[in-house]
Amino acid sequence: MKPVFILVRPQLAENVGTAARAMMNCAIDEMRLVDPDEDHLCSRAICASSGAEEILKNAKVFKTVHEAIADLQKVYATTGRPRDMVKPIFTGVGMAQDLNLCLKKDIKCGVLFGPERTGLENQDMDEADAIVKIPLNPEHTSLNLAQAILLVGYEIFRLSDSTKEYQFSVSEDNFADKTELKYFFNHLDRVLEERGYYPDLDKKPRMVRNLQNIFLRAQLTSQEIRTLHGVIDHLSK
Amino acid sequence: MKPVFILVRPQLAENVGTAARAMMNCAIDEMRLVDPDEDHLCSRAICASSGAEEILKNAKVFKTVHEAIADLQKVYATTGRPRDMVKPIFTGVGMAQDLNLCLKKDIKCGVLFGPERTGLENQDMDEADAIVKIPLNPEHTSLNLAQAILLVGYEIFRLSDSTKEYQFSVSEDNFADKTELKYFFNHLDRVLEERGYYPDLDKKPRMVRNLQNIFLRAQLTSQEIRTLHGVIDHLSK
Repeated sequence: MKPVFILVRPQLAENVGTAARAMMNCAIDEMRLVDPDEDHLCSRAICASSGAEEILKNAKVFKTVHEAIADLQKVYATTGRPRDMVKPIFTGVGMAQDLNLCLKKDIKCGVLFGPERTGLENQDMDEADAIVKIPLNPEHTSLNLAQAILLVGYEIFRLSDSTKEYQFSVSEDNFADKTELKYFFNHLDRVLEERGYYPDLDKKPRMVRNLQNIFLRAQLTSQEIRTLHGVIDHLSK
Repeated sequence: MKPVFILVRPQLAENVGTAARAMMNCAIDEMRLVDPDEDHLCSRAICASSGAEEILKNAKVFKTVHEAIADLQKVYATTGRPRDMVKPIFTGVGMAQDLNLCLKKDIKCGVLFGPERTGLENQDMDEADAIVKIPLNPEHTSLNLAQAILLVGYEIFRLSDSTKEYQFSVSEDNFADKTELKYFFNHLDRVLEERGYYPDLDKKPRMVRNLQNIFLRAQLTSQEIRTLHGVIDHLSK
């Protein structure tokens, strides 16, 4: 189950198009429009959606916010400026976590996004159960419509995403093991020894350690170890 | 200390403007441009930056990526599509955490963003220490320039942001304490008792509990308790 994104009185068709694109980036498909100023299927909207045409075509249009959320059980209202209302306020992360709990209970959820120039009116927010205010530079919190949708959608997408925060382009099991590494260090050491790289025996252990640390930090793959063996062989020819 | 955002061969001045706006949303000030197609100070750029003019005016222009990153010590390259390179790959969160550790060590960091149509070329990425790939809908990972900058900047901003993920619009200490709540429940109970709301004594405890749970879930403030006392007084007049 996924939330519905409701665009309230959007002004420009292009912005509805880029909003659809941002929704598609975050795998959110259902868009609803409340009293839009322009036709959300005009060429400017389709063009701006760059590939998210389906979302625009499937978008339903309503006269009022109340009609647009009539079938929903929990509604979040996004805003850039604080409002004096006794409602829960979530960050993007907080909202996504709360939304996730609701969706797991099969509670039908939606998120309201206001018009480009003014944002949601207080009477629009009155219909919502909770407020979403994304933490941003206090001196410049104003986001365009597609950007607000992207940040909210991104936090929702992240909850279902299992990408490792850090990984290597090559699959991890390609990392050289300590045996390959030791073998490489021995090769390097042997050749340097032959070439008289080490001035005297007291200095050698430290010089070896410093050299080895360079290669340890590089987190070498097995392939890279093979490459380095070749490099040493050629340098020492 | 903050990272530098480097826009590589941006095509449209508007996009450089909206990129500046997104940077300002995330409190990132230093923009560098590599061989832009258009003048980043033309009216279209300034207008699109809606308030982030300073960032555009302070932006430095360079001929090559190498010149633009010459003074940096760690560089991240953003991409939407996976590349076959043996470099660390970070998500937005992973990058922000890694970047934060670097900045704490006074390591000068930058993030590369590619041209709108193609993204960064492989030879641009070669200059980078690590890759940033924001997890998004695999069927639609392409972001426009300002959106890529917003997501990366947002993750960086969040690290320095202390907003509670969940809070109430009213300061928490306005929540009614259990004494006020008990007093209200007693008032409600007394009036309902007088009005013969409770059919018989065995049912009463359960009816009281159910009623009280409604108000408990509402997390009432002291002011709301006073309001409800008034409502009950008037209803029972």
